[in-house]
Amino acid sequence: MIDTRTTEMQELISPKLPHIFYGGDYNPEQWPKATWQEDVRLMQEAGVNVVSLGIFAWAWLEPRPGEYHFEWLDEIMDLLHAHGIMVDLATATASPPPWLAKLHPESLPVTADGVRLSPGSRQQYCPSNHAYREAAQALVKQLAERYRDHPALILWHIGNEYGCHIPDCYCDQSAAAFREWLQQRYGTIEALNDAWGTAFWSQRYGTWDEINPPRAAPTFINPTQQLDWRRFSSDALLECYEQERSILKEITPDVPVTTNFMGFFKPLDYWKWARREDVVSNDSYPDPSDPHSHVAQAMSYDLMRSLGGGKPWLLMEQVTSQVQWRPHNPLKRPGQMRLLSYQALARGANGIMFFQWRASQAGAEKFHGGMVPHVGTANSRVWDEVRKLGAELPRLDPLLAARVPADIAILLDWESWWAVEQDAKPSQDVRVLSQILSYYAPLFMRNITVDFVPPNADLHGYKVVLAPNLYMVRDDIAQTLEQFVSNGGTLVMSFFSGIVDERDHILLGGYPAPFRRVLGLRVEEFDPYVPGQTNHIRMSDGSTYTCDLWSDVIDLEGAEALAYWTDDFYAGRPAITRHAFGQGISYYLGTRPEQVCMEQILEQVCNEADVRPVLAVPPGVEVVRRENADRSFLFVLNHTTSAVEIGLNQTAHNLLTGEEHSERVTLQSRAVAVLESGR
Amino acid sequence: MIDTRTTEMQELISPKLPHIFYGGDYNPEQWPKATWQEDVRLMQEAGVNVVSLGIFAWAWLEPRPGEYHFEWLDEIMDLLHAHGIMVDLATATASPPPWLAKLHPESLPVTADGVRLSPGSRQQYCPSNHAYREAAQALVKQLAERYRDHPALILWHIGNEYGCHIPDCYCDQSAAAFREWLQQRYGTIEALNDAWGTAFWSQRYGTWDEINPPRAAPTFINPTQQLDWRRFSSDALLECYEQERSILKEITPDVPVTTNFMGFFKPLDYWKWARREDVVSNDSYPDPSDPHSHVAQAMSYDLMRSLGGGKPWLLMEQVTSQVQWRPHNPLKRPGQMRLLSYQALARGANGIMFFQWRASQAGAEKFHGGMVPHVGTANSRVWDEVRKLGAELPRLDPLLAARVPADIAILLDWESWWAVEQDAKPSQDVRVLSQILSYYAPLFMRNITVDFVPPNADLHGYKVVLAPNLYMVRDDIAQTLEQFVSNGGTLVMSFFSGIVDERDHILLGGYPAPFRRVLGLRVEEFDPYVPGQTNHIRMSDGSTYTCDLWSDVIDLEGAEALAYWTDDFYAGRPAITRHAFGQGISYYLGTRPEQVCMEQILEQVCNEADVRPVLAVPPGVEVVRRENADRSFLFVLNHTTSAVEIGLNQTAHNLLTGEEHSERVTLQSRAVAVLESGR
Amino acid sequence: MIDTRTTEMQELISPKLPHIFYGGDYNPEQWPKATWQEDVRLMQEAGVNVVSLGIFAWAWLEPRPGEYHFEWLDEIMDLLHAHGIMVDLATATASPPPWLAKLHPESLPVTADGVRLSPGSRQQYCPSNHAYREAAQALVKQLAERYRDHPALILWHIGNEYGCHIPDCYCDQSAAAFREWLQQRYGTIEALNDAWGTAFWSQRYGTWDEINPPRAAPTFINPTQQLDWRRFSSDALLECYEQERSILKEITPDVPVTTNFMGFFKPLDYWKWARREDVVSNDSYPDPSDPHSHVAQAMSYDLMRSLGGGKPWLLMEQVTSQVQWRPHNPLKRPGQMRLLSYQALARGANGIMFFQWRASQAGAEKFHGGMVPHVGTANSRVWDEVRKLGAELPRLDPLLAARVPADIAILLDWESWWAVEQDAKPSQDVRVLSQILSYYAPLFMRNITVDFVPPNADLHGYKVVLAPNLYMVRDDIAQTLEQFVSNGGTLVMSFFSGIVDERDHILLGGYPAPFRRVLGLRVEEFDPYVPGQTNHIRMSDGSTYTCDLWSDVIDLEGAEALAYWTDDFYAGRPAITRHAFGQGISYYLGTRPEQVCMEQILEQVCNEADVRPVLAVPPGVEVVRRENADRSFLFVLNHTTSAVEIGLNQTAHNLLTGEEHSERVTLQSRAVAVLESGR
Repeated sequence: MIDTRTTEMQELISPKLPHIFYGGDYNPEQWPKATWQEDVRLMQEAGVNVVSLGIFAWAWLEPRPGEYHFEWLDEIMDLLHAHGIMVDLATATASPPPWLAKLHPESLPVTADGVRLSPGSRQQYCPSNHAYREAAQALVKQLAERYRDHPALILWHIGNEYGCHIPDCYCDQSAAAFREWLQQRYGTIEALNDAWGTAFWSQRYGTWDEINPPRAAPTFINPTQQLDWRRFSSDALLECYEQERSILKEITPDVPVTTNFMGFFKPLDYWKWARREDVVSNDSYPDPSDPHSHVAQAMSYDLMRSLGGGKPWLLMEQVTSQVQWRPHNPLKRPGQMRLLSYQALARGANGIMFFQWRASQAGAEKFHGGMVPHVGTANSRVWDEVRKLGAELPRLDPLLAARVPADIAILLDWESWWAVEQDAKPSQDVRVLSQILSYYAPLFMRNITVDFVPPNADLHGYKVVLAPNLYMVRDDIAQTLEQFVSNGGTLVMSFFSGIVDERDHILLGGYPAPFRRVLGLRVEEFDPYVPGQTNHIRMSDGSTYTCDLWSDVIDLEGAEALAYWTDDFYAGRPAITRHAFGQGISYYLGTRPEQVCMEQILEQVCNEADVRPVLAVPPGVEVVRRENADRSFLFVLNHTTSAVEIGLNQTAHNLLTGEEHSERVTLQSRAVAVLESGR
Repeated sequence: MIDTRTTEMQELISPKLPHIFYGGDYNPEQWPKATWQEDVRLMQEAGVNVVSLGIFAWAWLEPRPGEYHFEWLDEIMDLLHAHGIMVDLATATASPPPWLAKLHPESLPVTADGVRLSPGSRQQYCPSNHAYREAAQALVKQLAERYRDHPALILWHIGNEYGCHIPDCYCDQSAAAFREWLQQRYGTIEALNDAWGTAFWSQRYGTWDEINPPRAAPTFINPTQQLDWRRFSSDALLECYEQERSILKEITPDVPVTTNFMGFFKPLDYWKWARREDVVSNDSYPDPSDPHSHVAQAMSYDLMRSLGGGKPWLLMEQVTSQVQWRPHNPLKRPGQMRLLSYQALARGANGIMFFQWRASQAGAEKFHGGMVPHVGTANSRVWDEVRKLGAELPRLDPLLAARVPADIAILLDWESWWAVEQDAKPSQDVRVLSQILSYYAPLFMRNITVDFVPPNADLHGYKVVLAPNLYMVRDDIAQTLEQFVSNGGTLVMSFFSGIVDERDHILLGGYPAPFRRVLGLRVEEFDPYVPGQTNHIRMSDGSTYTCDLWSDVIDLEGAEALAYWTDDFYAGRPAITRHAFGQGISYYLGTRPEQVCMEQILEQVCNEADVRPVLAVPPGVEVVRRENADRSFLFVLNHTTSAVEIGLNQTAHNLLTGEEHSERVTLQSRAVAVLESGR
Repeated sequence: MIDTRTTEMQELISPKLPHIFYGGDYNPEQWPKATWQEDVRLMQEAGVNVVSLGIFAWAWLEPRPGEYHFEWLDEIMDLLHAHGIMVDLATATASPPPWLAKLHPESLPVTADGVRLSPGSRQQYCPSNHAYREAAQALVKQLAERYRDHPALILWHIGNEYGCHIPDCYCDQSAAAFREWLQQRYGTIEALNDAWGTAFWSQRYGTWDEINPPRAAPTFINPTQQLDWRRFSSDALLECYEQERSILKEITPDVPVTTNFMGFFKPLDYWKWARREDVVSNDSYPDPSDPHSHVAQAMSYDLMRSLGGGKPWLLMEQVTSQVQWRPHNPLKRPGQMRLLSYQALARGANGIMFFQWRASQAGAEKFHGGMVPHVGTANSRVWDEVRKLGAELPRLDPLLAARVPADIAILLDWESWWAVEQDAKPSQDVRVLSQILSYYAPLFMRNITVDFVPPNADLHGYKVVLAPNLYMVRDDIAQTLEQFVSNGGTLVMSFFSGIVDERDHILLGGYPAPFRRVLGLRVEEFDPYVPGQTNHIRMSDGSTYTCDLWSDVIDLEGAEALAYWTDDFYAGRPAITRHAFGQGISYYLGTRPEQVCMEQILEQVCNEADVRPVLAVPPGVEVVRRENADRSFLFVLNHTTSAVEIGLNQTAHNLLTGEEHSERVTLQSRAVAVLESGR
């Protein structure tokens, strides 16, 4: 449970700009100076108050090794400041210039197949490479010292989308760093042999230098080696980030830092990363052709809020209309960009920014939309929407200090995610995000807000904890959950949980060994399905539902059966169970039931645990509450293509229109209301 | 408009053989000498008058570096000549012998992933490799000097299917050649940085030696780098060709040269290549399992004629029955080989040749059919068809000097093709050939012949110019088209045209900037569809059609709307427009309408522009006219599986049967008539 | 015809254990010693009498180069012996320890693309590598000398699943070995050039050192080079096996040796391998989600029996319930493991073993089931089934000396299999196993047992020989088959047979040249279909069937037509023929008819040749006979999910239940009866 009573100051990204952030990536180096003047004029027209500067400017700032050119950046910083626009200044290290590859070919990343990648796109560096790291840090030092006192500087933007193309590198230097990391983790080679289970397949290592990254091999690679490689690779990039951060913190201790996340990005353990950020920021590119993409987007926004421990976060990148990197790139419909922007604010963002300010004329992203599109600002739907949103946002400044309360937490452990999606499993189709979404979507549809929590979380304050697939058990999570339920909480857990320890070794003693007590059952066998295969479950009320993916064959050990298998040799045995344990209750789902069944189960869970929707509204309408000590801000977002009517249970002030609503408010398609009231 | 009034001599491939060419690739080195005697006897039986010799004979001619063996070639040249068979003599450089790879491993080509390919198949050379080029040129010099005066020599066949497997090489020597090519193109590194837009993603180059081929990289590679790589790679192979050609032209200035093209072969800019050939030749392998393959084949034949500026060309390779390189290789049905051969003659060919004379007994092409099949000549359908065609062809010698007239030209620019099909685009499904075919097929079905023209073409003489997707604008094509319409021509252009300049930089000022005046409109946004998505357009007559792939959101600026969107937020805005400009008219299609709609639009275009079908015939019958100063030759080809009756509008002499037809002629399934009449 | 009258002794795998073998792979090195004690206790409980030991123990036996540790193996051997359990002792060379790769990086295998694979999984060795071979042989020598007289040693298990991941290696050392192999095969480079047909595509080799493995190349690689590479690669691994075997045979001449096969494993010519084994053993992992997998499994069991010339063989590996290496791994249903085990015994096995004894706690196979599952032995369906089978098997000891008679033989030639499935063929869909199965399945359904025979087989004693696709003709098979038919046998052959010699050169003279006489026909052309295409054939009785894949266009030369094409230009020409030749009859199928037509044809063939089903039973019931000099053992296996009733034609004693059956026996779903009677 996140404490919603904080002071306003804590919620500001920077006291220098006590407003909702609005702006985008600004790459003036792509344009002649004449355009710069037009840019600042149009920024003012659009209500832009902050831009991200220099994200890909390394080659411009240091065109030759050690030769820095900051004049143009000085000029643009001054120009922006003169027009009242603050700067989120990049460390510019996301993509090294071609000269680095020429001077240090070993800085280029290598694939698991041994292909050394080339310059020509971006991010072509090995995270463990010394030459890259030294050059990056030297640049960061220069930047920090030059702009430490610049009045436009409001935030540091370290790197950019860490790992989005190169989450790991298999070169020899990475191998050396991996070995060092392993030595720190395990101390002795014997401990590593134990942890990796090298007694199998004759993999026993005699010395550290026999160990390599999980490069292309004849068949399935040792799973713990794969897992440690994931851990190491996330840490290697985090080390790059940390090295830059410590320079900035030394020179500009008062300037907050961030790096832009990418939602549920599997390669990086964002729980570890977020602890080292002053503000969490996120890039979000939902697919406009997917009618349900706003659900997954809401989920990633809830993650961002949770990563920061409930603090406001920044939507660092979205697109005004269309991107260029999907095979097919439809545009956002009129109103859609505004609607999705308000969704971010509803779920805790204090800023809305775009990639990028002005659509490029050249390069690989020239068909990625901008706030200023190729056709210009005259008679442009895109520009109109940008301008109107910019004009509207200041009306929301009152909610800057408001937080988003939640009674339910979803357990998300990156390491378990890595482990369960490795190869050589009972089923390759147990996918963490899809399992989480199967819980999240029914709750989203009922307008029940959830937080995400890591395995070492303090669960105090939550009524319900969901553990969709907690394959790996570590960090005392078994004890934590047992205590949580024992103290009156409700736990819902799905199949293939509690299977291995942090070394990916089976927890013997009957699946799911560490949770048998709290769940009151044993899983004797699991039976994964082939694609297209289904089974059915019959609930105690006689209703029958389809399920797919997986069957657990369950023995009850205290739990009661809520549903039974109807088919196959385990017909009549329990499929879904409920167990009163201590003061609380734990549910177990031995399969993946169809959506309508998940809705029914979660409704029962919520009712029992006294978790209530924010507001009862028609289908397709999203409602989220932000609140501070004394005020409540209700966001109502109509994702449907028709008008809807919403009944209110108290009088409210619509921040966007200034209207007062007493009983009901009507929202057109893709329209939004932000209703302020007392708590 | 191609001038059809030329002298007969200009139309002959060589004055030494004033007949339709008939023959095939002949590889006597695969067979014992006993077979050679049978070969020439059977060639005479089949009416063969020319063979392509030595295509893959390098290892046979030069078994060890510098050690040439021409005795066997002397013998076979003499034997052929003694039997009245002329020789299209290959330079034999298409595939170097294994010793080259052993001596010069660096001559082997390298993929974008860094894999150095091995000998064992064919074409294993890097186009920019010096060792390969020197060895090839030395061999060509030897051949030219030895056979300069041989009476059988009628044509030089340089290389073979240039680039069919290795259109580019990513090795270090290629990288060096690429850099040299870039220096010639751009002069300074600053100019290259500007052209490539390296201000984005920190790609700015400080020195030439930092530049590499577009080798495997972390993500989308700089699009101008990719484009220049395409240009360079086409030029690198053209340089190989040129070096051989200049040797031949020096030693045998009077012997014409060719190299065999492969239809719409994307990697090579055949407009540049064809200018360096005396006669255009083509290899054509339509898929017998595709009932529409003859349409695409007609299109490639029209391209061959157009590449040579209207001059007769050679069908250098086709197969008698079945090939071996598709996953499934059905055979040509009885009559199909003859029908497709006449299609080539109808569209301007003066020769019909096969790969190969005798089906191989061994090797990777042994299941590729030959004129002499494995089963031999007795009771062989294949051999019967070969023999009968050979007996029939001399009756067509009267049309040797006849050309194919056309009122319509389709704009085809290889560089725009390369650019529009690169990655990071609004839609990956805008494919040039498919767009061209959507125009070509309706015209083909109405028996309206078209030429192809390059972007720097003289459009004088054409009534209609079609520009299916002219994404890239260069070579003054914008002015050329504006003038063409202004002077009374009709232009039809499709969506995603006029988007970039030759550097792949967006032409700002509202899409499609350089064509807005002639089209009378502006495209505010484009909305690519995902697969399966459609929209509909309503024509002014109320008829409604489905369209897919793409929607333009159009503002009219002088044009009138011919059709409107019915769905989505731009419903009611124009989808297809017509603009009277100067003396002419321009049409614009902001989407891909279904075939029947294309037919209706193109019918309207043709009627307005007074472009008439050659003859009105039943569906499935193809009619093409060749004509010289005073005679007209009407080819009527029945592609259906039933007999059809054709009404004639004048009396004609059937060259194949000798009959005179006054009112009508009946054609059996897959039958052909060639009807001669006065003009 | 396999002689079923042998002495009992010959049929025993080892006289030391005159029982059905029962056990599994045992990997004690993965577990603490405390578990060892529990293991032997549980083995006794389960009726285990033999285990395979040390399969992946190399790194444990020789943790550092040359430093051997046998103490633990001594201990476990003694422990097993003390509990009456015999040992199939592995040479432990299937997977070298990581130190080998560190010491000898060149021992790692290389792919055709040049990727050198890494340690981290298993089998990471180049078969031709000297360092690997020397280290392996040194270890084998140590093992053999240490355990030569150990009373538990009953069988040597050389390597493990040879080639399952690395069937070939493309490194330079392999290239050298390949050249040596080629020199031995061809003697002179001229002979190699002839055999490979290098006159095509300029591939002529001047010296041996120009030759390479078929590494990645621009296009189709020389087919004879590919074929010789297959031959060489099978031989290279066989040489590894042979080198170990000769050491064992020298030191322990009386201990039989085996290596575990993998059914129809294409890369290794098991005919050559089996000649060097004392007992054939097999690993079998049918997919439980495939309702027909028991048919293909029966086929592979018949192959195992045939590889050993009819001698009993060992089912070395199967799984108790589920594996982990498929994308989805459903479990075996109750009774299914038992049923499939009896299927092996029915088809000639004298032992049933599992991978592995105890399911691993770590590593890539931890989700591969074991005899002792993760949940333990209490309340475990899997353990119950294991225990019950172990208790039951000794009742079958009477059939140890019984063999499986068969009247029909299917020709299987690995070299032809390799050749016909290479690229550049008329159709890529002519797949040997699918063609064999199309013959095998109808016979299986009628309970007619077949043997497999190699191309150099003695066909004496068989009534019918089936040659589904004998593309390549070698080893006098043409004469052999002609003589077989001439002497009264029946031959059934399918299309695309008799096409090439052992060099993959076309056998000229009209397809299928060497079989035209015996078949009484000529194939003028073949017409492969594209996917989805069909044709129809009409039988002499007027019935019509669908066929797909392929049409031969056939001229009769003595044969009579049994069926005619109904469609396409060859409608009315023969599709299936029958030819009386000498005392016998040959059938030819010029297409792939639908299953019901295959059943009809094979029924006619069997009736004519007097081949009768073992017993008439309801569909889904499998019946196989084993017999010795005076007793017959009828296995009846119910693969359906319902009970069935079987009529018997003589009184029989059910070995499993002890019951006597006179007229009929009822079998529940997945139940088995083994009925003993006099012959």
